[in-house]
Amino acid sequence: MAQKPSIPKGTRDFNPEQVAKRNYIFNTIQTQFERFGFQPIETPSFENSDTLMGKYGDEGDRLIFKILNSGDFLRKVEDSLYTEKNATKLTPKISEKALRYDLTVPFARYVVQHQNDIEFPFKRYQMQPVWRADRPQKGRFREFYQCDADVVGSTSLWQEVEFVQLYDAVFSALQLEGVTIKINNRKILSGIAEVIGASDKLIDFTVALDKLDKIGEEKVKEEMLAKGISEEGINKLQPLFELKGNFATQIQQLQDILSVSEEGQKGIEELQFINMAIAELGLQTATLQLDVTLARGLNYYTGAIFEVSAPEGVKMGSIGGGGRYDDLTGIFGLKNMSGVGISFGLDRIYLVLEELDAFPNTVNKNIKALFINFGDNEALYAMKAVKALRSHNINTELYPDAAKMGKQMKHADKRQIPYTILVGEKEMESSKYTLKHMVSGEQEQLSLDKLIAKLA
Amino acid sequence: MAQKPSIPKGTRDFNPEQVAKRNYIFNTIQTQFERFGFQPIETPSFENSDTLMGKYGDEGDRLIFKILNSGDFLRKVEDSLYTEKNATKLTPKISEKALRYDLTVPFARYVVQHQNDIEFPFKRYQMQPVWRADRPQKGRFREFYQCDADVVGSTSLWQEVEFVQLYDAVFSALQLEGVTIKINNRKILSGIAEVIGASDKLIDFTVALDKLDKIGEEKVKEEMLAKGISEEGINKLQPLFELKGNFATQIQQLQDILSVSEEGQKGIEELQFINMAIAELGLQTATLQLDVTLARGLNYYTGAIFEVSAPEGVKMGSIGGGGRYDDLTGIFGLKNMSGVGISFGLDRIYLVLEELDAFPNTVNKNIKALFINFGDNEALYAMKAVKALRSHNINTELYPDAAKMGKQMKHADKRQIPYTILVGEKEMESSKYTLKHMVSGEQEQLSLDKLIAKLA
Repeated sequence: MAQKPSIPKGTRDFNPEQVAKRNYIFNTIQTQFERFGFQPIETPSFENSDTLMGKYGDEGDRLIFKILNSGDFLRKVEDSLYTEKNATKLTPKISEKALRYDLTVPFARYVVQHQNDIEFPFKRYQMQPVWRADRPQKGRFREFYQCDADVVGSTSLWQEVEFVQLYDAVFSALQLEGVTIKINNRKILSGIAEVIGASDKLIDFTVALDKLDKIGEEKVKEEMLAKGISEEGINKLQPLFELKGNFATQIQQLQDILSVSEEGQKGIEELQFINMAIAELGLQTATLQLDVTLARGLNYYTGAIFEVSAPEGVKMGSIGGGGRYDDLTGIFGLKNMSGVGISFGLDRIYLVLEELDAFPNTVNKNIKALFINFGDNEALYAMKAVKALRSHNINTELYPDAAKMGKQMKHADKRQIPYTILVGEKEMESSKYTLKHMVSGEQEQLSLDKLIAKLA
Repeated sequence: MAQKPSIPKGTRDFNPEQVAKRNYIFNTIQTQFERFGFQPIETPSFENSDTLMGKYGDEGDRLIFKILNSGDFLRKVEDSLYTEKNATKLTPKISEKALRYDLTVPFARYVVQHQNDIEFPFKRYQMQPVWRADRPQKGRFREFYQCDADVVGSTSLWQEVEFVQLYDAVFSALQLEGVTIKINNRKILSGIAEVIGASDKLIDFTVALDKLDKIGEEKVKEEMLAKGISEEGINKLQPLFELKGNFATQIQQLQDILSVSEEGQKGIEELQFINMAIAELGLQTATLQLDVTLARGLNYYTGAIFEVSAPEGVKMGSIGGGGRYDDLTGIFGLKNMSGVGISFGLDRIYLVLEELDAFPNTVNKNIKALFINFGDNEALYAMKAVKALRSHNINTELYPDAAKMGKQMKHADKRQIPYTILVGEKEMESSKYTLKHMVSGEQEQLSLDKLIAKLA
């Protein structure tokens, strides 16, 4: 193979620095998940195709990566079908497995499959890669991690309160201060659609409303009109475009708009409960904000809808989102299991932390010191010290060859190792170690105990 | 979907307890990898097919999971080829990507692709899943993790010394005492084949020798004879079957057998260096043992060969293995890069720890205490305590509904939560919390400070 090897488009290699930074984010999220009582599960990278197909709409079906059956996969394909040469029809005959597309459907499958072993309500978290045959573009990949926490089997609004706190806890732990946790409720959206006489056009209505930030009031109204929502109805929306003030004030205004909608009233009650609890409990660094235009994957959310945006000034889409979806497991035959959950967007959080230079210096688990190699005798002596340092939890190693000093020093430099340790004949005789600080160039002679104390 | 959902054969779901135990093993290995100066990389789950195909032999090619191209994957397939209906010929036309089969080939690809950004010698570790379309059986899965540490770009024997110490460090940290690290050297095997006049039958010879433990001396000799190795040659092997004593003594006996083989002598020198260094440095709980029958994936090892067996009395195949392979990256066009590395068998280590009941109790990150819910007022009060406990790194949560006390207690029991905390009207008035120990049933009244101190 003459040309340089490459990797498939939309995938990535991660070098040591990137892995360390990603692990820092994973570990921070994981610690908070566990702090809040979520427990980890893992599911296989590929599922039976019928577990995944039909769960994400037609577009989703197309974006699912299918795995070719092993062996002579054409043997059982009937000639009549084969000769049609139709990829769509052939696929289910030659592929029975598919790569995970998200973590929610596998979680629902897991809950149904293991329902007899699960104690409900079940709070699980899952941090695993997913794959989508999307057109790769900046910030969109064909393999990426999802970090999800969900509760299944509880309709309590305390779960929503917990998720708001969890977002706050994670972003505060990441020192990513000033994120906005936007909240809405499907029942509010249904109520509004009801009030303007567009209940049958709920999806069109919310899709248009969702664009308010991007295209502005007039264009939203035009789109609604084009979708067949009456001018009279749209006029009733006017107060919605003029919602002002804090959470409580906005709720008050919504009250008026939704006074005639039972479902809308229920949505208001839910928002009020969550807002009251969060006001009492307080948030560390995040802000909770009502956003009645927030819809996200509306067709499966049934209650709360969440979305998190990065601190002001950082250009970035949402860095997290979620909501409540009743009947999570219904698709697999287990009815009446309400689910609610949130997700963290690892890649975007990474980019935000990078932009704000907010990764701590301790993220890198680089070695603290490199022992310089002066030959086998000195190296063996040094290796005894290496062993002693490691037993005190100090990451260290010996340069493997008795190469020229300059080469070894350069190696330490390039790897940004803070210290080198020199052990030559003189040091062996005096039982001292010469510790050199690589940035300042300063050197000192230390006994093994002092060396350990200094580096520990 | 009426029937219960399932997962593809050879794959597994992991429940919270299993994930916690697996993470304990991962974390222990990772800590030692970093202690020894290895740095993490990650590569994509799928590679371009031509990166993987042809690297693992015909059998390997068959066991690689191929990913079907997205979209209309038949469009570009020529009719003449298509009508042949030949799966082997069709595969490369409809599939361009394949799932990772091991971590070594992707690592080699990574090194070549990023050679200009890498400072050599490069010590990397990688812990990621791999996929093989093997026939599933007990202990063999289609998706499993590999945990590899390798050095590329160094021929120093100190690397081999380090890997012996690394095995010892990991298994000692896992409290898995008494493992045996078996070592051999490809040059020893070549030397023996040379001495018995079977250099051209090195593979047949080592495959037969490798079975000594399983089928015994006579059968091994029969197999060699059948493979065309001369009776005279086999007779020369006799001393090999009678190797006795410790490492140094066995080396002495090998010296005699291999006195006429230059390559064999080189192998002996290497083994002696490693044994000398390990004898000087000492091992914590493992034993280093010479095993001249050890061959493993001989066709790519060129120097040291390692294999680790579980403590005596535990029935289990090898729990780790590795070796040196010159020219690791040659397959991708970068010559003269020696590699040496070891692997840890996660699934088998898990089974051994399970059998020996050697997982620590602290593995589980379960919550420490469940707050009982007596209604919204009490719950809000409790949530303030929940928040305070969490800020002191105590994992805790509130039961989400004001269900009957018995039901809430049963929930705590089933989840094996050690404590429940009761906050009713009385407690709210006195600013005390009733802490109940779930096993003993004992209760005590504590202030928030005392509660935190007790559970921290």
